[in-house]
Amino acid sequence: MTYCVGMMLDIGLVFMSDTRTNAGLDNISTFKKMTNWESPGERAITLMSSGNLATTQAVVSLLDERTRAHDDRDPSILAVPSMFQAARLVADTMREVITQHAEAGQQADSAFGATLILGGQIKGGPPRLFMIYPEGNFIEASADTPFFQIGETKYGRPILVRAYDPQMSFKEAMKLLLVSFDSTVKANLSVGAPFDFHLYEKDTMKIETTGRIEPEAPYFQLISQGWGDALKNALDSLPDFSLE
Amino acid sequence: MTYCVGMMLDIGLVFMSDTRTNAGLDNISTFKKMTNWESPGERAITLMSSGNLATTQAVVSLLDERTRAHDDRDPSILAVPSMFQAARLVADTMREVITQHAEAGQQADSAFGATLILGGQIKGGPPRLFMIYPEGNFIEASADTPFFQIGETKYGRPILVRAYDPQMSFKEAMKLLLVSFDSTVKANLSVGAPFDFHLYEKDTMKIETTGRIEPEAPYFQLISQGWGDALKNALDSLPDFSLE
Repeated sequence: MTYCVGMMLDIGLVFMSDTRTNAGLDNISTFKKMTNWESPGERAITLMSSGNLATTQAVVSLLDERTRAHDDRDPSILAVPSMFQAARLVADTMREVITQHAEAGQQADSAFGATLILGGQIKGGPPRLFMIYPEGNFIEASADTPFFQIGETKYGRPILVRAYDPQMSFKEAMKLLLVSFDSTVKANLSVGAPFDFHLYEKDTMKIETTGRIEPEAPYFQLISQGWGDALKNALDSLPDFSLE
Repeated sequence: MTYCVGMMLDIGLVFMSDTRTNAGLDNISTFKKMTNWESPGERAITLMSSGNLATTQAVVSLLDERTRAHDDRDPSILAVPSMFQAARLVADTMREVITQHAEAGQQADSAFGATLILGGQIKGGPPRLFMIYPEGNFIEASADTPFFQIGETKYGRPILVRAYDPQMSFKEAMKLLLVSFDSTVKANLSVGAPFDFHLYEKDTMKIETTGRIEPEAPYFQLISQGWGDALKNALDSLPDFSLE
């Protein structure tokens, strides 16, 4: 499993992904699930993936390769004119990869599936955020649905639903996401730290603020331990049920 | 889907269940998923169910019937000597029901499955809490795993994990459970109010404090609305992430 969140804020886009992949409980590895492409000052694009690791790595490798040697038939993610076209390109690339494996004799082709979150900004357009399904179709975030989660989404969802605010600062958004990730990690072994993040500031068209939160990082420890107490205080602040 | 929680406290047992059943999104009904049996001063037993409604209703009906006319082959839940034997009886009854349907030609017999939470106390023993699987085997709650959830368990789990305390009062436990149920209801249409509850006070062997929380009940509204603010305050109480 996996847990990734992409979020639209007034000030830009926020991305966070875990790094655990597993094929069975005894076959666990760490892989980065976030990829960035940029042409500084002109475009900045981030992709996060959940699902079959071979599929998502092939998609990223193909997209990467085509930024170096692309022709008309295979446009590059650094050349497409809009974020919508970028989402189409990524979706088509994924379909291509999955079809290839299916043709090679795979029976249950859903096993090769992957779900992606794509976000970023290309000069001339606003920041946009998409969720791309294994079938190759996709939906876009809006004011009504301002964030997407993929992978093991349920444990970390209630806090996002309750505390998300489009006017958040990046610092507040990081705090919120780390609480959501911590709740998930505490409940599901298939999601694990470290967590990669990218904070994209609107209209910069640059990948500037990225990083990795290690499980032993003091701030994450503070959040992880402090959240339990904060929740208990929150519960205490509500009136008790009356049995009369 | 369904959401039920059974919880062991130092002062007794707490049970809460939702009441929504659905066969498709356009076929929604309200059913009580909690059943109580008592022989006042001697035993008090509570059963909650998730899964196939026909199966769980048949199990409850059979158990009920056998409290009225039981023989040695079919012991009654009001006659078994211990909670462990009660759990075995319920599990065997469920297996009987599922097998019957399977013999009648059902192909995918898992579709008739149900998962149950059984708890209570029989004179001479302590209060005990069990989770019974569709296969008819079961596990018992302990200090390490002091509560069981069945149905749509994920959304409401983080708050239980963080805030559960065996020394809670019934009033605090009700508050905690309503927050957990509210988080679930807000995320999943297949779980819905009203919620039934039973607060069993240790060593009373009586079903005394039971009730139903309607969605428009003022206290539930207070919790549902207050929890969003309380969570935001909890988040605010933690230090912001530092970008330096």
